[in-house]
Amino acid sequence: MTEFTVTRVWQATGGGRRFLVMATDFTEETAADAVIESFAPSTDPRLREILTSLVRHLHGFARDVELTIGEWEYAIDFLTRTGQKCDDKRQEFILLSDVLGLSMLTETITNRKFGVATESTVLGPFHVVESPVKELGDSIDAVGTGTPCVVTGRVVSTDGTPLPHATLDVWQANDEGFYDVQQPGVQEEGNGRGLFTADGKGEFWFRTIVPRYYPIPTDGPVGSLLKATGRHSFRPAHIHFIVQAAGHRDLTTHMFVAGSEYIESDTVFAAKRSLIVDFGPIEDPAQAEKWNVPADARHAHFDIVMSPEA
Amino acid sequence: MTEFTVTRVWQATGGGRRFLVMATDFTEETAADAVIESFAPSTDPRLREILTSLVRHLHGFARDVELTIGEWEYAIDFLTRTGQKCDDKRQEFILLSDVLGLSMLTETITNRKFGVATESTVLGPFHVVESPVKELGDSIDAVGTGTPCVVTGRVVSTDGTPLPHATLDVWQANDEGFYDVQQPGVQEEGNGRGLFTADGKGEFWFRTIVPRYYPIPTDGPVGSLLKATGRHSFRPAHIHFIVQAAGHRDLTTHMFVAGSEYIESDTVFAAKRSLIVDFGPIEDPAQAEKWNVPADARHAHFDIVMSPEA
Repeated sequence: MTEFTVTRVWQATGGGRRFLVMATDFTEETAADAVIESFAPSTDPRLREILTSLVRHLHGFARDVELTIGEWEYAIDFLTRTGQKCDDKRQEFILLSDVLGLSMLTETITNRKFGVATESTVLGPFHVVESPVKELGDSIDAVGTGTPCVVTGRVVSTDGTPLPHATLDVWQANDEGFYDVQQPGVQEEGNGRGLFTADGKGEFWFRTIVPRYYPIPTDGPVGSLLKATGRHSFRPAHIHFIVQAAGHRDLTTHMFVAGSEYIESDTVFAAKRSLIVDFGPIEDPAQAEKWNVPADARHAHFDIVMSPEA
Repeated sequence: MTEFTVTRVWQATGGGRRFLVMATDFTEETAADAVIESFAPSTDPRLREILTSLVRHLHGFARDVELTIGEWEYAIDFLTRTGQKCDDKRQEFILLSDVLGLSMLTETITNRKFGVATESTVLGPFHVVESPVKELGDSIDAVGTGTPCVVTGRVVSTDGTPLPHATLDVWQANDEGFYDVQQPGVQEEGNGRGLFTADGKGEFWFRTIVPRYYPIPTDGPVGSLLKATGRHSFRPAHIHFIVQAAGHRDLTTHMFVAGSEYIESDTVFAAKRSLIVDFGPIEDPAQAEKWNVPADARHAHFDIVMSPEA
């Protein structure tokens, strides 16, 4: 049993009423300390560190805004609805973390330690089916609408050494802004997805279409939060990557389409400058022919720098 | 569409790779500002105030502890499970708020404004059925085990004026620490509950048994949090009150049994000194007879001071 400070024992008053005073008085100023002191000495040190900071910030928030009981009740209901909106296809708490910038902040803190490596960004909620295995040069687009493009790049280590046979799991929305899993019966399952293996020089290339910006789901509590704060729900156009190479940390990132709508205001704050890539014209028709795309296709080049494992 | 700062437009690099640089770089230091700047000017001022503080504290927390992606994933899962544990009989987010001291802090901030009035405390999760209407002097105990007692008191305004015909909704756990709704088939529905109306002088009295301390539910995420931090799950013995009087603010409070186990360490931090009341012996046998209780019954006196409506 954890006890916090015992202040006084007895206090007599008139009128037949007596107080036995043994409990700490809970005050706005001491409340956070009382909670923190309730953690037993045996508590895991990292858990204690996290909960201590959490309690101080949570209480600091309530004191700063002088949270009312009605507002607290609203928050309890909001969080309950957020949890109950989650199922195997939907993660509303990740969306909430995303639109409050917490997901990207956590990614950025983690990424801080890896110097010149390609920056990571959020995984997002659509990595839910296995990507079909493809050969270099294959297309991941099975629909044929949209603007064709070629994505090329090279996977290297932080010292510039190429990483042969690195794998690249890529997935993207189509030209209407939908992932395959959002349009069952319209898109073929696996459309917009591919699992590639780089060649002996760490190089990769594949065909696809230029993805479109799209909204995050807005039919839950997070949608109502965006609406109440006059925020749009859109993410700028991007292609997801998970890159893996022997002896290196896995990298989860996006390449963003330069000039995409919402590139200045990604609703999940994930559009890092270093990840924005020009999807420009192919100037050499012979090159287009070699890549097996029309002469007016686009080309985006994305070199990927992997961080060695510690 | 809300835009945040546009920094630069074009940047050329070698090797065929070009960056179109339009997005704000998301950094640990500027992340909270970026989120706050995304709120449209039309946002309700109070909502903006609350979310601004929330985002600053949430980001401050993640930066202070250098939250890892694995810890973030654990938190997302914990909150999801907390939401999914809730139903019409169970509110796990209220329990979470309770054990982190947030519920009492919110109560205390609200109560701050009401000077000499009786302090409020948490509603708790067991005010879920209607209390049976009772006459002054009736017993709310239908079981007959436990230590009999009489509760008396007077309802007055902050200036001492009695408040005739104030209503008192009372509910409590039995001598084993269970509310009626926790023991269907064992306790009669409505056992331990009563709705009383004070007399013309604002006075009230009723018979019951001395309640017992009890644990909050521990079969959910909050139980695992208590376990991980070596905290017990108990609340000291208490009787709940919701008091209503014409022209006055409703009061939600408890009277705590002085000397109860856990009175120094209520797991929801709700045991305020001013609410601890001695359940002492009845010294005058004639008085016990008048109250229709055995000579060895207990007596607790709880005067209630109501705050006039603004």
